[in-house]
Amino acid sequence: MTIEEGQEILLYVNEKKSWIVIVESGKKFHTHKGIVDLGELIGKEYGTELKTTLGLPMKAMPVDYLDHLERVSRKTQIIYPKDIALITLLANVRPGSRVVECGTGSGSLTSYLATHVQPGGMVYTYEMREEFQRIARKNLERMGLTKNVEMKLKDISEGIDEREVDAVVLDMATPWQVVDLAHNALRTGGRLVSFSPTINQVEKTVEAMRSKGFLAVKALELLMRTYKVKANETRPDMIMVGHTGYIVSGRKG
Amino acid sequence: MTIEEGQEILLYVNEKKSWIVIVESGKKFHTHKGIVDLGELIGKEYGTELKTTLGLPMKAMPVDYLDHLERVSRKTQIIYPKDIALITLLANVRPGSRVVECGTGSGSLTSYLATHVQPGGMVYTYEMREEFQRIARKNLERMGLTKNVEMKLKDISEGIDEREVDAVVLDMATPWQVVDLAHNALRTGGRLVSFSPTINQVEKTVEAMRSKGFLAVKALELLMRTYKVKANETRPDMIMVGHTGYIVSGRKG
Amino acid sequence: MTIEEGQEILLYVNEKKSWIVIVESGKKFHTHKGIVDLGELIGKEYGTELKTTLGLPMKAMPVDYLDHLERVSRKTQIIYPKDIALITLLANVRPGSRVVECGTGSGSLTSYLATHVQPGGMVYTYEMREEFQRIARKNLERMGLTKNVEMKLKDISEGIDEREVDAVVLDMATPWQVVDLAHNALRTGGRLVSFSPTINQVEKTVEAMRSKGFLAVKALELLMRTYKVKANETRPDMIMVGHTGYIVSGRKG
Amino acid sequence: MTIEEGQEILLYVNEKKSWIVIVESGKKFHTHKGIVDLGELIGKEYGTELKTTLGLPMKAMPVDYLDHLERVSRKTQIIYPKDIALITLLANVRPGSRVVECGTGSGSLTSYLATHVQPGGMVYTYEMREEFQRIARKNLERMGLTKNVEMKLKDISEGIDEREVDAVVLDMATPWQVVDLAHNALRTGGRLVSFSPTINQVEKTVEAMRSKGFLAVKALELLMRTYKVKANETRPDMIMVGHTGYIVSGRKG
Repeated sequence: MTIEEGQEILLYVNEKKSWIVIVESGKKFHTHKGIVDLGELIGKEYGTELKTTLGLPMKAMPVDYLDHLERVSRKTQIIYPKDIALITLLANVRPGSRVVECGTGSGSLTSYLATHVQPGGMVYTYEMREEFQRIARKNLERMGLTKNVEMKLKDISEGIDEREVDAVVLDMATPWQVVDLAHNALRTGGRLVSFSPTINQVEKTVEAMRSKGFLAVKALELLMRTYKVKANETRPDMIMVGHTGYIVSGRKG
Repeated sequence: MTIEEGQEILLYVNEKKSWIVIVESGKKFHTHKGIVDLGELIGKEYGTELKTTLGLPMKAMPVDYLDHLERVSRKTQIIYPKDIALITLLANVRPGSRVVECGTGSGSLTSYLATHVQPGGMVYTYEMREEFQRIARKNLERMGLTKNVEMKLKDISEGIDEREVDAVVLDMATPWQVVDLAHNALRTGGRLVSFSPTINQVEKTVEAMRSKGFLAVKALELLMRTYKVKANETRPDMIMVGHTGYIVSGRKG
Repeated sequence: MTIEEGQEILLYVNEKKSWIVIVESGKKFHTHKGIVDLGELIGKEYGTELKTTLGLPMKAMPVDYLDHLERVSRKTQIIYPKDIALITLLANVRPGSRVVECGTGSGSLTSYLATHVQPGGMVYTYEMREEFQRIARKNLERMGLTKNVEMKLKDISEGIDEREVDAVVLDMATPWQVVDLAHNALRTGGRLVSFSPTINQVEKTVEAMRSKGFLAVKALELLMRTYKVKANETRPDMIMVGHTGYIVSGRKG
Repeated sequence: MTIEEGQEILLYVNEKKSWIVIVESGKKFHTHKGIVDLGELIGKEYGTELKTTLGLPMKAMPVDYLDHLERVSRKTQIIYPKDIALITLLANVRPGSRVVECGTGSGSLTSYLATHVQPGGMVYTYEMREEFQRIARKNLERMGLTKNVEMKLKDISEGIDEREVDAVVLDMATPWQVVDLAHNALRTGGRLVSFSPTINQVEKTVEAMRSKGFLAVKALELLMRTYKVKANETRPDMIMVGHTGYIVSGRKG
């Protein structure tokens, strides 16, 4: 693959340092450790190594979805990849699925859902705060994932417009208040998955789901432990994200 | 949705008890708690509740992918949904992706990959043991997921046939021995993800990936904690799956 | 050290199989794998290996406190060593400490507290159920730890008799109802530590402690992960005790 | 209890802010939020609240061992209270125990061992680095715990001087090299407990212990999860210490 003018590329230094930039002839990119001339990359192969004026080596890499996802995550209230991945599985999201999401937030979960309902599916994503919707739209546009998303500026507690959807995914402060509406919107056998930081939200949501007759109601959380791997010195990292949120899931009976 | 003759349905009793059965007129299904007449369901709505001759209530639910996945998982050496979901994310699997997998095992990870490369993508899955391949094929057929899978009865260490693939996913005893081959098979920027139960496998795989020049090499594991939720009595479950395996990921530079 | 008639010894086969027995001349001990003559051990050194009639090797080991503690733990509702150890530290139990405990249960926590208040300290342990007290007394007698324990057959919610104690340790269903009484019983700077299985108990106890003016109120839990260690095959055990209970601690201001 | 001139007290603001100071007439204590006159506390009760010149409220609390332990922990390479507590239990440390420790480090584990071998027991603690020993000695003096400690400025790999000890506790880089020496030093049935940050150290130590014939060899680790407790908003803390070290224990056969 050859790098062309106008393309987004990833300038990769190491795990902790990399940038997404657009290649243009004559354009310089400034770092703390010197400057690179992006124009020189035009016509080169992806994977090409270049050096800044101060000698810092970098690689010109193709940008992919995960590069974008990492960057979204850093900007706003975050939902971690580990949770995004499992929520998507537990909601049984697949090509063609119609999924209601609330709230949109920064759009990171939206983007993953949108990826996996292709082709033919749709993510209907509700958000009350206009500025969040704007941020999310920008993120989705950057990722090329707007086609399978319908963004709604609306308080979901006033009603879900869709019917017979395959899944409802909630990442909001009061999910238990939406359980009835989610039940109405779902097809029989459809999945409700909710993500919340506190155990009290979990209690209320599980109770609401049970009393509405949801089947297979489960609550769980994922802890991700990262490792420092080195021959003869391997150990878990000392600092860990000890909590992100709990996941509740169930199925319309 | 109406239940039709010949369809697979899920007979759901509770979280721990449910069966996938085929509806046929005149067919009886026997449980420890009495018998149900499956033929009576023909023409009924999904969600219909029925009772066994001994009074056990059940629901006739549509069968979906997750129902099948749960059942695959119970049969052979297992890769848990939490790991399947995150491996798929870390491998950046998406519509159109071309993914090499080794080994096929029972096909549970294969089935999830195959779902998410649709349409247009392909999972090339290597397996040495014929009986495993046969089990996996049956599982994939049952799930309707054979179209995007190419099953290979071959020792992957003799070579990966594909080139410029987007991802290589390894769930095998000696992943470090395949790192070079994976590097050859991957396109620049493609992802290698490996799953292993022991920390020693992690050490060797990470070392092999680093010395081959893989970027952003990371090792991690997911711990899933399930909860017993009940108003005023909420607590984590006492017994937990404390370990499934470690996930190593990286990217061809 | 020489084994003498009438002594308790540990017959050790492996980590999972060992028995505490009393050595008497002429006494036989029967196992699934044959018989040993305990009398033959008299006058032998500790550490002596013997064989059953069917060839199973065993070691005659001195019995210590931990051997007894493991056995107590198996019999009743259990408080795990990891929790016993940290509760004792957080309660700042030391030689001479006067500690109120409720409930006595099987006496396993009592026995650890009693060990570490020696000499001169005292554990005042409250229990309402006579049969529990009887079991606990037997356990403490067996361990030789009755001297520093005063066992009280009493509902603690009717009052704590002691004043100016150094610590109050609670392992009971409704600890929040005892927070006021504990406050009265403690000296300024004394520690209250409570152990409970549910998060709701934690919420109520923490709230009660805060509103009573306890300082440095903290809530935490310990997860213990055990490992299967073998060269090149090291990994955490697959099955884990995922939850025992939460520990709340604070200090009278 | 009355505060007297010359006494150490704890000035407590909140969980995160407190100082150990010595009360002297005429002495001022300066904080970011104003000044307090320590002399005014003489003759007052412990628990007295005072205010800085800028209105910050504080409590004058008695200082206890845990206050000192917290402060030791912050200064050097740390062994956490959760590990100190369990190591002490697993080493079966009790009044009268004779314990070999290596290395002394900052003396925080030493101090806990020394507390619990009273009366009549002894901690023989080895340390090669003179400045560490000096720091540890100062810490132990401050805690009043020197009586049951013998500090040795010596490389333990040159030999353990003691015989028939009840426990050997290792917190050093190469514990496996000391397993033979520990075996010689221990009495039959005595306990060896080792604490190490990497899994490779665990592997080597477990192998060395097994080949030396230690019984009941186990490896484990403790994860401590702290909670933010508030009615209706209870959740685990987001940032967690994800790893401190592994504990290996066994018993001389």
